[in-house]
Amino acid sequence: MLSPMVAVSTFSAGSVGSVETQYIDLPEPVQLNCGQALHPVRVAYETYGTLSPARDNVILVCHALSGDAHAAGIAKTPPQSGTRDGFGAADRDGAAGRGLGWWDGMIGPGKAFDTDRYFVVSTNLLGGCSGTTGPSSIDPATGRPYGSDFPVITVADMVRTERAFLDALGIERLAAVAGGSLGGMQALQWAIMFPDQVDAIVVIASTHALHPQGVAWNAIARNAIMGDPAWQGGHYYGTGHKPDAGMGVARMVGHVTYLSAPALDDRFGRRLQFADDIRHTITEPEFEIENYLRHQADSFVKRFDANTYLFTSRALTYFDLAREHGGGSLARALEPVSARTLLIAFSSDWLYPPSASEEIEDALRGLGKPVESHVIDAPYGHDCFLLEEARQTPIIRRFLGSG
Amino acid sequence: MLSPMVAVSTFSAGSVGSVETQYIDLPEPVQLNCGQALHPVRVAYETYGTLSPARDNVILVCHALSGDAHAAGIAKTPPQSGTRDGFGAADRDGAAGRGLGWWDGMIGPGKAFDTDRYFVVSTNLLGGCSGTTGPSSIDPATGRPYGSDFPVITVADMVRTERAFLDALGIERLAAVAGGSLGGMQALQWAIMFPDQVDAIVVIASTHALHPQGVAWNAIARNAIMGDPAWQGGHYYGTGHKPDAGMGVARMVGHVTYLSAPALDDRFGRRLQFADDIRHTITEPEFEIENYLRHQADSFVKRFDANTYLFTSRALTYFDLAREHGGGSLARALEPVSARTLLIAFSSDWLYPPSASEEIEDALRGLGKPVESHVIDAPYGHDCFLLEEARQTPIIRRFLGSG
Repeated sequence: MLSPMVAVSTFSAGSVGSVETQYIDLPEPVQLNCGQALHPVRVAYETYGTLSPARDNVILVCHALSGDAHAAGIAKTPPQSGTRDGFGAADRDGAAGRGLGWWDGMIGPGKAFDTDRYFVVSTNLLGGCSGTTGPSSIDPATGRPYGSDFPVITVADMVRTERAFLDALGIERLAAVAGGSLGGMQALQWAIMFPDQVDAIVVIASTHALHPQGVAWNAIARNAIMGDPAWQGGHYYGTGHKPDAGMGVARMVGHVTYLSAPALDDRFGRRLQFADDIRHTITEPEFEIENYLRHQADSFVKRFDANTYLFTSRALTYFDLAREHGGGSLARALEPVSARTLLIAFSSDWLYPPSASEEIEDALRGLGKPVESHVIDAPYGHDCFLLEEARQTPIIRRFLGSG
Repeated sequence: MLSPMVAVSTFSAGSVGSVETQYIDLPEPVQLNCGQALHPVRVAYETYGTLSPARDNVILVCHALSGDAHAAGIAKTPPQSGTRDGFGAADRDGAAGRGLGWWDGMIGPGKAFDTDRYFVVSTNLLGGCSGTTGPSSIDPATGRPYGSDFPVITVADMVRTERAFLDALGIERLAAVAGGSLGGMQALQWAIMFPDQVDAIVVIASTHALHPQGVAWNAIARNAIMGDPAWQGGHYYGTGHKPDAGMGVARMVGHVTYLSAPALDDRFGRRLQFADDIRHTITEPEFEIENYLRHQADSFVKRFDANTYLFTSRALTYFDLAREHGGGSLARALEPVSARTLLIAFSSDWLYPPSASEEIEDALRGLGKPVESHVIDAPYGHDCFLLEEARQTPIIRRFLGSG
């Protein structure tokens, strides 16, 4: 096993300790891009550190496709959606078994997002399945779960919800918004939609618009889910059946895209499950990597809702700053940004490649905006943003002025 | 649309004309790696050109995962498996609509495999669904189609079947065995199993052992098929249901791996189906690439058998010359080879990357065997072996002594 795969358990400058996810019901409907207004909306969240009297030390952390509000510390109670099996393709079974947050290596006293200084807020995103309103929530119009009748949301809708949530918490300004992957998209969206309320953004392993191959992988994952008869047109709640087979395939596709080919070589090679020889079977895993993928699929379907996967996957493929805010021009889209921007990409990330970061950097620089960009040379692919905590930490601390 | 995608229709030095697939029943059982003996075995084949009196001008062409015996010319009758929609990810709808063989640009008078000189033989591989015995054939033990009871075959079993087929045809020696992808694996297997009967092999976009990421993609495709309830444990024939949803997902995964990310950028970009704006839908394709993948899936499931996909995919993941023939050493595995070897790889092929060709080249060179290796700089990924005919042709003609 690769040592970075267990880095979370060894790198811990300090822990935020025991935490419990909290919930807040937004007082007003959330206006969505699709034209609908969503109400009621509940937001699941956690906070770490202490809010300053001036309320000027808040960092909002945004999660990626399969995350939740439990970003740091040890969960007092298991999350609503069931057992956690890790995040991304990273092997966090060990960490998750102890209830550790998905970015515990990055959030805490002395860590990248230093809770001795900052009040870190983490929410489950709109459309989620871990406490925030999503497709598995009750539709007040029918008294049954929304299912596929949930409105098709965008990253901007997620950010509007986060804005309304912070209003409800009495927080106006953000010292920073930070996230990786889809979380980084939310950070960028914040800087464009609420430029006067965001001092800095930390955008890790993310993009201003997913490339066509990434759009394709997401389409395949959604087709796998929707093609499973157990999806039942999206209304599987309470039927005793859910699209586990399709979700499993979606998760497998995700896993392979989150890791690099060399990382798979290093970790699994072509090793057989049974070292002596092949067993001539089509139904059973023969190679270690086949067994690994099946295990990851099996554990993911236990903790994650298929409709949340569909809606979140759709939102991140739609995300396109140039189209949505710039009439096709990324530079025009970024014109409103006043936040200082930190971009981090990873050399082996082929799903959110460094070139996407470079395009954002070039556009911001062309506009004369403050931007700092790093490409970390690391072999693990997209999952580096969850694994390479030790190398991201000094960059982020320096950027945030934590030294 | 990219011009190389239609290259097949414009590049045609000469056609072999109208051809009809023929069938031969092997007189003896085929002994398989798994220990079983398969009988009866029928082989579907086509031939192009004229067999010399000395029977010394035969080139065997081996197809890849989704191919069939119809490699060149215009089919007199549609293939047994239904309409052809192309091959690999290549857009051969136009060509297939006119019944053109999958390698028509490479086989014919004056072409790479020159039928003015060579007698080219093409078979549907063992386990296939286009005339050669496979999972959809009748199991004599039950009187019903084998389904998942078909023996789990290997590339060596395919080659044994081809050997027996050529025996039945009265052909002992081969001037060359040629193929791309899984077809190239068969060519390598021929050179190892029957070194005295093969003068040359042409191995294109292939490998001695698929890398772990490739193993993963194939595992995902098979999981998609077997996870579809319509697969019915592999016994779906005659039930009125077949695993089209799972096969569609498998085909989509294949398509994306056959093409390069830059090729998808060039061809589809992030263009929406409806240019004005997104429609906020999870069930309908929004991006052109989403629509393309769905179309490819829909047409593939009409022409190809899901069980053949499973067994063939399994065989190509098992294929591992070093493990099977060299006690872990590729060099030892290649020791018996006496054929001259031509290797062609493509710079943008990330499924069968040039590094695999280089490993074969290095091993052969270390053994003092005659080998010639080319990496063609081309942007279309693995599908280059079907698309870059004009650039492969002079290399192959020179290697075969056709000038």
